[in-house]
Amino acid sequence: MSGLVAVPSSSAGEHERLARVALGRLGEPGDPRITRQVQQLGAARLYRRLCDDDPRLDLAADSAARRDGLDPSAELERAAGHGIRFVIPGDPEWPDGLDDLDRVQDLHRRGGTPLGLWVRGPLRLDELCRRSVAMVGSRSATTYGASIAGQVAAELAGAGVTVVSGAAYGIDQAAHRGALSGGGPTVAVLACGADRAYPSAHRQLLDYIAETGLVVSEAPPGSAPTKLRFLSRNRLIAALTVGTVVVEAAVRSGALNTSSWAGLLNRTVMGVPGPVTSAPSEGVHELIRSGAATLVTRGADVLELVSPIGSHPSTVVRGPERPADRLPDLDRQVLDSVPVVTAVPAASVARTAGLAEPTVHAALERLRAAGMVEKGRSGWRLASR
Amino acid sequence: MSGLVAVPSSSAGEHERLARVALGRLGEPGDPRITRQVQQLGAARLYRRLCDDDPRLDLAADSAARRDGLDPSAELERAAGHGIRFVIPGDPEWPDGLDDLDRVQDLHRRGGTPLGLWVRGPLRLDELCRRSVAMVGSRSATTYGASIAGQVAAELAGAGVTVVSGAAYGIDQAAHRGALSGGGPTVAVLACGADRAYPSAHRQLLDYIAETGLVVSEAPPGSAPTKLRFLSRNRLIAALTVGTVVVEAAVRSGALNTSSWAGLLNRTVMGVPGPVTSAPSEGVHELIRSGAATLVTRGADVLELVSPIGSHPSTVVRGPERPADRLPDLDRQVLDSVPVVTAVPAASVARTAGLAEPTVHAALERLRAAGMVEKGRSGWRLASR
Repeated sequence: MSGLVAVPSSSAGEHERLARVALGRLGEPGDPRITRQVQQLGAARLYRRLCDDDPRLDLAADSAARRDGLDPSAELERAAGHGIRFVIPGDPEWPDGLDDLDRVQDLHRRGGTPLGLWVRGPLRLDELCRRSVAMVGSRSATTYGASIAGQVAAELAGAGVTVVSGAAYGIDQAAHRGALSGGGPTVAVLACGADRAYPSAHRQLLDYIAETGLVVSEAPPGSAPTKLRFLSRNRLIAALTVGTVVVEAAVRSGALNTSSWAGLLNRTVMGVPGPVTSAPSEGVHELIRSGAATLVTRGADVLELVSPIGSHPSTVVRGPERPADRLPDLDRQVLDSVPVVTAVPAASVARTAGLAEPTVHAALERLRAAGMVEKGRSGWRLASR
Repeated sequence: MSGLVAVPSSSAGEHERLARVALGRLGEPGDPRITRQVQQLGAARLYRRLCDDDPRLDLAADSAARRDGLDPSAELERAAGHGIRFVIPGDPEWPDGLDDLDRVQDLHRRGGTPLGLWVRGPLRLDELCRRSVAMVGSRSATTYGASIAGQVAAELAGAGVTVVSGAAYGIDQAAHRGALSGGGPTVAVLACGADRAYPSAHRQLLDYIAETGLVVSEAPPGSAPTKLRFLSRNRLIAALTVGTVVVEAAVRSGALNTSSWAGLLNRTVMGVPGPVTSAPSEGVHELIRSGAATLVTRGADVLELVSPIGSHPSTVVRGPERPADRLPDLDRQVLDSVPVVTAVPAASVARTAGLAEPTVHAALERLRAAGMVEKGRSGWRLASR
């Protein structure tokens, strides 16, 4: 078979790594014909079968056009020259969460644990992902959505949670920027090679993320972003994180694909609502309505849902307390029956309240002591402020 | 005992009715000391015990101030003169849903099935309530909230569902008006007497509702609205309806009290979300977040939730379909690998797609037949539009 360079077998680990590089070049990210068989056979064996043109593999035919010039060692070296490493299962940096992809069904003919991840940046992927949340949403976000995404991301970053997103326009960009402004590292998972910038307008943002956090891709360096690679990428965003927050997703949004993966993977799926009149919020509302996502409105809500139980107790929003709130029901009932302006006798208050006069007398005295009612010659009325 | 007029015993039904009128005048709406004991003893016996100053009843002391001039028959006559009837359990017009109040716990020292309802208007309460939804929310609604409430109410009315609300400013008003604009009758449940208008600015609205739908109150005609009567009233709004929709409720809103009752009563609780930056939506978001309410965005969502299963199938919002959506995954994958401008040979498309050349050839021909790609001398590219 032409074009295939023999894999050096210096070490079992390197052997496996090179086979994974080669398979990644021959197939498409997330092609279950590769990911599922690697799980069964191991990468080296599957690669050998491909080299042997095993007729049981339609993959052999599909990958034929890509065999020319394939050189996994050279590929690893070239990547290293761009500051990109190839992380595979078994490496200390491999995030365990990715293995969950083996245990869930495929979506849109994509699925399985990736062969490896091409990683660019100074930090360890496994450590960044341990406490991480995906934030995804519409590329054509409204200022409302972008602003909320930025705020939530900043809150998460401030609490030491890594924000993972896809570096697209709109919500993704707002999430990355928000995380950076919150002082945290952020992880961009791309559909194209980790050396490329898509959209190209985000070249600077991606370079900055690669300096301070991580830029990650399943597709080999140099790969262009394609529709299928976006779909494959989405499963990684879901699998790398503890939960996925969707901010503005129209009914056909890729963000909903990510949240489907998160649901399949038993991750926490969260959605930020918006005006029901706003089309970009429709997909999120549908997620919440159907029970697929929990409604969140701020970083604290997200932290509560993705943190170990009890470490982020619920902070229910309460209105400002008014003095009358602390009154026992009975005194409250009496207070509500005292007129504002014209003082009336206690008997009249008792009639209004529907309570016995001695009961009302006692309550009125307590309310007077609290400064809430006053007694004049003609009877009782509310204290003037 | 002074001030009590003997109840005429011409018929058992009228005897019971007059006792209920009397008890309603002596006690406060929803006072469980009355509602619960009426359930056990019947209204006539409880009333007799009160007349006997039964020392076991602290109620006897509390109601003492209200006994002067009590005359239930005259009260019924006066009410009839204002076009108001007193509907009690056993009457054909009595809505069964109110009896559910006997089976749930009290909230804020209010609870139980009401002694009766004072009803003003031409329609039958039981019939209006059979397919009815409560819409409640903030008195200080935003234009967003009021507009959504009006729209949802109009949709419900158009589908033959009665909208029940409390005639307050804000969401209540928008709901009533929306229902009327949708061509449906609406029911206003008041905390004051059914002959009164609170707020007084809604006098005209309430008169119109009383002409075309119903104005209802547990409090006897002439009663002023008090804090406790609002709390009692809320349980009726929840009990009279199949479900409660909350549109904009700040964290201390009375609307949340109504939705608590609806939850206790096993009614469907629904909430319309809004911008997370909007304080009046906070209470609704909390309801949805905690699972107490289901998110709804339009009348169709509400209809689906409150209708018998299957009669209003879910209408999931979908984006406009594009031609490529109907393609099989394989053809889609090939289409995504065809360049826009510069034509390339099929082998190049095969390499990009990661598919075998014969497979790609067949797919390209199908795509050409569908007018989606074109073939020139130098190869394949997307069809120009």
